[in-house]
Amino acid sequence: MNIGFLHPGAMGISLAVSAQTTGHPVFWVPEGRSEATRERAVAHKLLESSSLADFCKTCDIIISVCPPHAAMEVARQILQHSFRGIYADVNAISPEKTKSIHKLMASNDIEFVDGGIIGGPAWEPNNTWLYLAGEKAAEVATCFQGGLLETELMGPEIGRASAIKMCFAAYTKGSTALLCAIMATADEMGVRQELEKQWSRNGSDFAERTHNRLQRVSAKAWRFSGEMEEIALTLKNAGQPQGFHLASADIYSRISKFKGAAPVPSVEEVLEALKNKRNQV
Amino acid sequence: MNIGFLHPGAMGISLAVSAQTTGHPVFWVPEGRSEATRERAVAHKLLESSSLADFCKTCDIIISVCPPHAAMEVARQILQHSFRGIYADVNAISPEKTKSIHKLMASNDIEFVDGGIIGGPAWEPNNTWLYLAGEKAAEVATCFQGGLLETELMGPEIGRASAIKMCFAAYTKGSTALLCAIMATADEMGVRQELEKQWSRNGSDFAERTHNRLQRVSAKAWRFSGEMEEIALTLKNAGQPQGFHLASADIYSRISKFKGAAPVPSVEEVLEALKNKRNQV
Repeated sequence: MNIGFLHPGAMGISLAVSAQTTGHPVFWVPEGRSEATRERAVAHKLLESSSLADFCKTCDIIISVCPPHAAMEVARQILQHSFRGIYADVNAISPEKTKSIHKLMASNDIEFVDGGIIGGPAWEPNNTWLYLAGEKAAEVATCFQGGLLETELMGPEIGRASAIKMCFAAYTKGSTALLCAIMATADEMGVRQELEKQWSRNGSDFAERTHNRLQRVSAKAWRFSGEMEEIALTLKNAGQPQGFHLASADIYSRISKFKGAAPVPSVEEVLEALKNKRNQV
Repeated sequence: MNIGFLHPGAMGISLAVSAQTTGHPVFWVPEGRSEATRERAVAHKLLESSSLADFCKTCDIIISVCPPHAAMEVARQILQHSFRGIYADVNAISPEKTKSIHKLMASNDIEFVDGGIIGGPAWEPNNTWLYLAGEKAAEVATCFQGGLLETELMGPEIGRASAIKMCFAAYTKGSTALLCAIMATADEMGVRQELEKQWSRNGSDFAERTHNRLQRVSAKAWRFSGEMEEIALTLKNAGQPQGFHLASADIYSRISKFKGAAPVPSVEEVLEALKNKRNQV
């Protein structure tokens, strides 16, 4: 089966390699992509499609793996061509948005699979899980069975894979955003040193881990704001408060300027950016 | 020195015992208190004052240790009597509210000390810290030097002890509220079992610890809503989003009915209460 990826970013390329390892030809579309994406695709010998139209003709399965705010747009682009395979959206979007994309695909006779990825890029075993839901979920899972990506089937109901992804990220990324807000507050009030001392009592490495979390998240924050809005909507639709993740979206937007920063900024630089915008959610 | 406590709740009684152990006579006011408070005071041989007026005449230092929403009221009651010692507010309130109480005391010629407690009741060493700020902070610290309560001086500036308390609790109680919201969301969407399995991968006890946190917090949630509002205000005044802790206040108010529950409710009972109120922050 020919598998296509839109688009091979840091996460996408690891999924593409899992599909390659399983024995499938893997395609991508260079048009309009960044130099970093090209380098990844070339380094891992992905096959180029000359256009999106060509890509849609070639591929049996298309995997959409992109920032949450781009998921709907990527889906719409596919509809402008004659794709007749399985479209799997594995993005960090709410079950509601997933269902909208499903509806769009169904009304164009395209099979749809709901996916959600938990963990970082799949470069080691037992580290990254792709949850899949929908009638064709098992077919998508078989694309990856020989690679490092783990797959989990969630049954036929569209939305369940997105739901578990939203819930999982709600804590990891929500609690990191909370720590960002607290560190900035302590810094502003002049008690950060004392707070870090308290966090380090009895041999705890919590202060040190918090520093690492602030620094590491800053390079990825640019794409987390959209995900936090998706999570806020998910909680709201489940009858829970959306304030945790609207606040998280605010926090990540304050530090979005560190996109892809290498080396990562210092804790002081992150705090300066967090304190710079004085608007509240 | 005669030390008075308003009022010896679960935390207050442990501070009172630390002061007793240090060698000070410790007083309380039975009038209007619950049977549980009476039992604690009698069990630890606290000395009874016949009235608040008598208590104010007897004590050299008064420690206010009460739920956040009662802090201002307790302070105002003192002003109706002729107290001329040191008044220490060690409650979980924002630096702003602390400064208001300071102002009130200062305009009545009462010395004021700002305090904040981190940790549970002080029944074992190296477990509970009383942070103290203000000109007379050291005098309050000496009340406890022979007991199990640890004290930390934060300098003369009123508000700094409250600030570190707010920042510390912002994470512990904020992240527990976040977990409550996520568990209720996963339950509502029918993916709780899968989420807990994901949380338990690679031998992690995160799912189990989350269950414990939900169950244990439910009995204390009734007094956490007010604290979350104080923390929200603290973050807002420092230029950070207040949404994390307004959402936390909502969460804790939903489970406030479990006040003092023993044994603690089941996870399912906590989730039922969380899902019962469908209003969002």
